[in-house]
Amino acid sequence: MSNEELFVAGALNAWKGNVERADKLFASLGEDELLTEVAPGRNRLIYLWGHLTATHDRMLTILGLGPRLAPEFDALFLSTPDKVSDLPPAAEVKRTWDEVNGKLREGFATLSAADWLGKHGSVSDEDYARDPLRNRFAILLSRTSHLTYHLGQAALVPVSVR
Amino acid sequence: MSNEELFVAGALNAWKGNVERADKLFASLGEDELLTEVAPGRNRLIYLWGHLTATHDRMLTILGLGPRLAPEFDALFLSTPDKVSDLPPAAEVKRTWDEVNGKLREGFATLSAADWLGKHGSVSDEDYARDPLRNRFAILLSRTSHLTYHLGQAALVPVSVR
Repeated sequence: MSNEELFVAGALNAWKGNVERADKLFASLGEDELLTEVAPGRNRLIYLWGHLTATHDRMLTILGLGPRLAPEFDALFLSTPDKVSDLPPAAEVKRTWDEVNGKLREGFATLSAADWLGKHGSVSDEDYARDPLRNRFAILLSRTSHLTYHLGQAALVPVSVR
Repeated sequence: MSNEELFVAGALNAWKGNVERADKLFASLGEDELLTEVAPGRNRLIYLWGHLTATHDRMLTILGLGPRLAPEFDALFLSTPDKVSDLPPAAEVKRTWDEVNGKLREGFATLSAADWLGKHGSVSDEDYARDPLRNRFAILLSRTSHLTYHLGQAALVPVSVR
């Protein structure tokens, strides 16, 4: 592996490890347990799971890996807070979560180290020329941080519930 | 900047941005507010702040950047849970947090891209030879994830308190 590839592999390892942590945490829970709030008045686990799914789904287009799989999740889990919309059943969130992360994994495997340093889809040519750190790699790192941010919250629910 | 340096700069940007988020969140709070639990029966903000400080302090030796600044924080914030030990005053946690992160920043600036791919201090030569991803860069990424994990928890405390 070249040095560039080692940096990419390290970041992909971190991504993968945290997706697996989320799998373990959410996928073991029943419909009722997923309705638990992470703290009084705060988001429910099912909302966080859908929110992460929608965020990862958006990565497909931002990284240029293909069309989104579940754009309808945005209205439920991104543009509105929890407890406003009727949420889909847990089985549907799980299926979408698995599909989205599978599609990302396949897409990641097609990207070279140079591709990771290329412009992502939410930045203009001009802004990227000014700041080459606005690249695909930055999206991978920021979405890994986003994932662990919410994993920390989900982990607050007592193990007796989850 | 070379491609290798761009990967490092991206990860350092993510680190820096999250340290600044933590600064903003914790440093604006008074002694009393820092005693708020992030969820009922869970860690208090002051404990999380000290826990992050101790974790970052340990990075100095793991990354080979010099001696630790506050090894006494381990017994308070790493090896024991919250509400067991008498914790130091907030001003002392803040001072240590600032010093540790400043020292890390200085140390990071001395590392080349190749240094980031070098073995870190918590892995044997043998294990590193087997898995070259057990490098300094992996420590930077995992400690950034650790930071955002706890930032997500700290953010659950209502803004009226923090």
